[in-house]
Amino acid sequence: MSAALPRPVSRLIDEFGRLPGIGPKTASRLVFHLLRMPDSQARALSDALRELAEGIVYCQRCFNIAEASPCAICADPGREQASICVVEEPLDVVALERSREYRGLYHVLHGAISPVEGIGPADLRIDELVARLQTEPCEEVILATNPSLEGDATAMYIERAIRATPARARLTRLARGLPVGGDIEYADEMTLARAVKGRSERG
Amino acid sequence: MSAALPRPVSRLIDEFGRLPGIGPKTASRLVFHLLRMPDSQARALSDALRELAEGIVYCQRCFNIAEASPCAICADPGREQASICVVEEPLDVVALERSREYRGLYHVLHGAISPVEGIGPADLRIDELVARLQTEPCEEVILATNPSLEGDATAMYIERAIRATPARARLTRLARGLPVGGDIEYADEMTLARAVKGRSERG
Repeated sequence: MSAALPRPVSRLIDEFGRLPGIGPKTASRLVFHLLRMPDSQARALSDALRELAEGIVYCQRCFNIAEASPCAICADPGREQASICVVEEPLDVVALERSREYRGLYHVLHGAISPVEGIGPADLRIDELVARLQTEPCEEVILATNPSLEGDATAMYIERAIRATPARARLTRLARGLPVGGDIEYADEMTLARAVKGRSERG
Repeated sequence: MSAALPRPVSRLIDEFGRLPGIGPKTASRLVFHLLRMPDSQARALSDALRELAEGIVYCQRCFNIAEASPCAICADPGREQASICVVEEPLDVVALERSREYRGLYHVLHGAISPVEGIGPADLRIDELVARLQTEPCEEVILATNPSLEGDATAMYIERAIRATPARARLTRLARGLPVGGDIEYADEMTLARAVKGRSERG
């Protein structure tokens, strides 16, 4: 910013500005907002950031973010041990847990294969997944990558990698079709085509 | 967020979400960005926030934000002591310092009168300005509030408050006219009217 700003202010503007989607204008707006609030708000944000830096580890079994390894899900003997759901991001685990439909284990890849972004299979936790299948009593691997080009390519790559090993788990994908609460009139043609193809008998 | 997220993650999402213009989606995007970066970035942001909470005071003379009171400008004997430039916000001081045209002192109001936002004269540092004029050798008060409805109303209020005291400083306002580098064709009618009214002799 400028010499006329106290160093702590310009320093925080710089730090906020390093976050994605936050330019110098937004950064300085955030800092001046915090200056107008009681100190406690800046302190609470500071403490939360420190806790993130110090208190988050990756579960060494499923690679989800956690407060300790193994994570709460991997450490829970009540979860079905014969099923591994493979997702791209920790937030996908959150979404699936919220659905209350899945009671097995997870494996978090931390991304999807994307040549455009320079992300290859080696950048994801794919080798670790294949290794799990050699040692764990897994009977089904649900490839729950996103229904996108990158997600599909990643699922296909993983499928081939698993088929090349002696592992004999079933490989499945999440169903595609109309979103619940959606409107046929507004569904895109790809979704509608998948919904027709995957139609099921009533009752 | 959800039970499936470690507490430090959901806590930081909540804290980011308390900032203006940052909703839950953006907040979680920021947190997952930080999770992907080396810990040092979250730590640097944490430290900068703590420094802001602990290292910023208001100058008790001009009420600008500073690392100590009096601020660097008030403490500088090289500044013209006979002139006080009244601005709304600390960033206005930054802008004026950048222009290198002003060498006097400042007074930061921390806002402008705005009935819509519920900001009255008592919420601003106006009484403190009037008090300064009784004790300081001020000869000119430049009312450099924004060229907006609120800024003009604030300047007018301050003018009346100062006229009601024995202080005999000159009261001036910043010139209005065409912005340098601007284009007459695109100037709004109010600005153009002020530019004509305030025209000056060549040479």
